[in-house]
Amino acid sequence: MKARQKKLYKTPEAGVLRVAYKDDATALNGERREIFAGKGRRNNQITSLIFRYLKAKGIDSHFIEEISETEQLVQEVEIIPLEVVVRNVLAGSLAKRLGKSEGELIEQPIVEFYYKEDALNDPFINDDHVLFLEVATNREVEILKQEAKRINAALTELFKKAGVTLVDFKVEFGRTKDGSILLSDEISPDTCRLWDVETNEKLDKDVFRRNIGNLITVYDEILARLEEVVRNV
Amino acid sequence: MKARQKKLYKTPEAGVLRVAYKDDATALNGERREIFAGKGRRNNQITSLIFRYLKAKGIDSHFIEEISETEQLVQEVEIIPLEVVVRNVLAGSLAKRLGKSEGELIEQPIVEFYYKEDALNDPFINDDHVLFLEVATNREVEILKQEAKRINAALTELFKKAGVTLVDFKVEFGRTKDGSILLSDEISPDTCRLWDVETNEKLDKDVFRRNIGNLITVYDEILARLEEVVRNV
Repeated sequence: MKARQKKLYKTPEAGVLRVAYKDDATALNGERREIFAGKGRRNNQITSLIFRYLKAKGIDSHFIEEISETEQLVQEVEIIPLEVVVRNVLAGSLAKRLGKSEGELIEQPIVEFYYKEDALNDPFINDDHVLFLEVATNREVEILKQEAKRINAALTELFKKAGVTLVDFKVEFGRTKDGSILLSDEISPDTCRLWDVETNEKLDKDVFRRNIGNLITVYDEILARLEEVVRNV
Repeated sequence: MKARQKKLYKTPEAGVLRVAYKDDATALNGERREIFAGKGRRNNQITSLIFRYLKAKGIDSHFIEEISETEQLVQEVEIIPLEVVVRNVLAGSLAKRLGKSEGELIEQPIVEFYYKEDALNDPFINDDHVLFLEVATNREVEILKQEAKRINAALTELFKKAGVTLVDFKVEFGRTKDGSILLSDEISPDTCRLWDVETNEKLDKDVFRRNIGNLITVYDEILARLEEVVRNV
């Protein structure tokens, strides 16, 4: 997720920010860009729904409340410049890296760190690199991995009820004023790979990245399915 | 190290192999190749000296004995298909990956795993990928890291006495019949980055990779310096 897909604004209240979700879709680390009218609304609604669901499952995030169709209030945090990726099914860059086909089940979820640095194309790094770069401490690295796995377990369950396989996803974390680690950013079809459980149809940003369908239609499908699950909880 | 730089032969004794060091130098994952008369002898002699030194420091390896200028006997092991890299100073691919200059000191040595698979160009992977690929168990991953760090501490001390900074190096490990992990392969200027402590002059295969000097001259320099250190121990 590049900053241009969301905008952050100060609010009168100290420590509270307003996030405005935009209609931009980018791929290839921002080289390709398109506008999809209504994408911002859907990502705001999906992220808000997911952060509320995680809260109910005991997983806190920076999310405070949805204040309009495209905006939410969030707690201000110092973002840790790591993309934390969790994988349940082999797909995308990792399938290429390991020379295997997409779709293979990963029994023990894989957690990866990518260093958020546009100029370097967000390189994949390991725990020792994180410490060398001083972007997180050893203790924080362990917390990030644990939290990523807890989030994965909760989201896998949610999406399963919606008839969707959570293939992989990316989350970001921040530090609060008191130094604790808090789930931040967004969780949406922009940041998850979501496949229909029955057909393996792609219901995420890969329809844009790979030009294989209508992005708005599949985001609507995800939103509708999640809303139905949440209604029935 | 590609197989073409050494050759393995069976011996009459079960569980014992003969390694013949060859004069080939390769770079760019084998795409570039040249012959340097006498390189095999130097790498055999340097590796033998280093494995004997490590043994005296309590670190076992597959090395049994040097039987000719270019050959040694080693214990047969099942090679774990991982290149285990330890870094003390930033250089090479990691400097590029992190967008930093070569030469920065790494206070806590960095350990990295690369999956040995020529067709994939030996990709950099993390602990979770190692488990997914089933090339090592969780317990073995921890042993590999610990052993790599122990080897690093011993080698750093050895090279320091020789007036050489051990910038980084690659080792490989194997499993013995009883399932224990044993340092294998070679340790030479083909597998280490070695810089003169005073001048930072490169005394390793980078003189070939980067076309900046005579490979045989610098390998001779390393061998002579190590022999002097070992004589004076």
